[in-house]
Amino acid sequence: MSSNKVTIGISCGDLNGIGIEILIKIFKHKDLLESCTPVLYCPIKALNYYKKKLGFNNFGYVEIQKIENKIPGLLNIIPIINHDIDIKPGRVDKLLGKLALESIDMVMSDIDKGSVDVFVTLPINKATVSKYSQGFKGHTEYITQKLNHNGKSLMFLCSEKLKIATVTNHLKLSKVSKTITKKILEQKIEIIINSLINDFLVEKPRVAILALNPHAGDSGLIGSEEIDILIPFINNYKHECSVLVGPFSSDAFFGSKNYKNFDAIIGMYHDQSLIPFKLLSFGSGVNYTAGLKTVRVSPDHGVAYEISGKNIADESSLKAAIKMGVKIFLNRQKIQI
Amino acid sequence: MSSNKVTIGISCGDLNGIGIEILIKIFKHKDLLESCTPVLYCPIKALNYYKKKLGFNNFGYVEIQKIENKIPGLLNIIPIINHDIDIKPGRVDKLLGKLALESIDMVMSDIDKGSVDVFVTLPINKATVSKYSQGFKGHTEYITQKLNHNGKSLMFLCSEKLKIATVTNHLKLSKVSKTITKKILEQKIEIIINSLINDFLVEKPRVAILALNPHAGDSGLIGSEEIDILIPFINNYKHECSVLVGPFSSDAFFGSKNYKNFDAIIGMYHDQSLIPFKLLSFGSGVNYTAGLKTVRVSPDHGVAYEISGKNIADESSLKAAIKMGVKIFLNRQKIQI
Repeated sequence: MSSNKVTIGISCGDLNGIGIEILIKIFKHKDLLESCTPVLYCPIKALNYYKKKLGFNNFGYVEIQKIENKIPGLLNIIPIINHDIDIKPGRVDKLLGKLALESIDMVMSDIDKGSVDVFVTLPINKATVSKYSQGFKGHTEYITQKLNHNGKSLMFLCSEKLKIATVTNHLKLSKVSKTITKKILEQKIEIIINSLINDFLVEKPRVAILALNPHAGDSGLIGSEEIDILIPFINNYKHECSVLVGPFSSDAFFGSKNYKNFDAIIGMYHDQSLIPFKLLSFGSGVNYTAGLKTVRVSPDHGVAYEISGKNIADESSLKAAIKMGVKIFLNRQKIQI
Repeated sequence: MSSNKVTIGISCGDLNGIGIEILIKIFKHKDLLESCTPVLYCPIKALNYYKKKLGFNNFGYVEIQKIENKIPGLLNIIPIINHDIDIKPGRVDKLLGKLALESIDMVMSDIDKGSVDVFVTLPINKATVSKYSQGFKGHTEYITQKLNHNGKSLMFLCSEKLKIATVTNHLKLSKVSKTITKKILEQKIEIIINSLINDFLVEKPRVAILALNPHAGDSGLIGSEEIDILIPFINNYKHECSVLVGPFSSDAFFGSKNYKNFDAIIGMYHDQSLIPFKLLSFGSGVNYTAGLKTVRVSPDHGVAYEISGKNIADESSLKAAIKMGVKIFLNRQKIQI
């Protein structure tokens, strides 16, 4: 049963969303199974529901009881047992928040045992998950805290067109300004540079920093964070093999296509980074959590309730995520050699 | 000397920026002169400098002393006299801030007399202009205050692909949240709806509202402004011929191309609206100030010092701005009939 393939642990996400549909669409073809062995932690009932609903009756999978029994060349399922499940695509269902969380925890337990190479999370509904995990902000924060790798990580959005991170993540906009400090910038930049070097094999990373305020604060006329924090931080930055440039007025930066001149970009807050990323990645973007010992990736979209169960969901982003996860895992091994 | 053409009053902007270069590039062809009569308020020396520098020696213009003497079919110049001018493309020059402001004031004086149909502003350097006008935030705020039409206006970014406005404009990010109130939303939505109907002849406007917080606040998990302000505002909105929809999670809104389903979009802050606008308008976007009695337009870029005087600046945005200004002026006349 052993294999040199990369082992992918997959949490099932919200079962009324599009997660299982796009997963089936990917693994009904054999191509990705050449490079990885996927293990999904999921109620069998849910998988069978979508197989039938979407007309993928011939789709094959194998049920296993523990990850050590995984079989290459197939989608492996470690079942979550719950008799109350009632799949209704598109419906908000509190129970499914509980199961989504259980699935994440099961993968993390196998990560702790060293049995998972790449962690892939299918989309969840934060509102239902948070009923079972107080203060739950999102996958990135939850996984970072639980896996406890220094408590530090970075949401790093990656596509063919650009790589972009955000200093603050699922944080209310009113709190962003106060959260931008020299310390957090140091933490995030360290992660981004290490990730570019070790995960993406960029030898001398060039990273652009976006300004917090409109027009990069216009010399202090519109906010002082650039003068007080960002510019001194960039001017004092010294690293033997990387370069920081900025702070750039974010609208002009994207409008002028300046983003093409950098290996990565870091924005100050979620929407500043996510809006251009989603516009430019055209549905095949990957949400990568940099800075963890375990490679964790996810598609860059949510549960998409409105199209769930209709066989119209696009699997491109999940496919790109799995491919990138495998690539990063293999790149890290090259670096270690 | 009379003409049915639309009279365009043009402020000269920062003379070390690309403004005069792109203006010459537009009016050295005759096509736009068929529909409008441009009047530029500018030192003659600056115009001659760029004519020579860029090799446009045959470019013709006419110097006039007052707007009533304007000549159709040519670029008219009302001179600003200053013997200390020393044009050096790309250089920050305090004196040019003074002249840029003087030019804006001269156009506004002629607007007050009813002699200008459309006001076109060439890009300025806010830092130098603000030396001569305390608290200067930008053209939009300055012109709105001076022309004193209820003190209300809206920066409305328009291109072939989308129309998008922003509730707050040149405001530091840390102040955005507190500025989002029912009152300001009412003001801005009123302007946007009136503009769509009267300026762009949209019969039943559909307008999308972007959320303030990431993921539209995720049911209150990431900020409460959506629940406290935006959702009640949208639910209580009643207007006989327009529809408001939202608040949308802004990254997903653009990523899913949902923006194509609306006549206009309104974001909560500058970069939230300007990043997607500049990415989607591909250099031909127009900055239109809606809500004023006078039509005011400008290109959507700045002085671009780094390319000034090199004959590589792209005039597309200014050309689109002038065309749109003329169109809006003519549309308003149709509505009045």
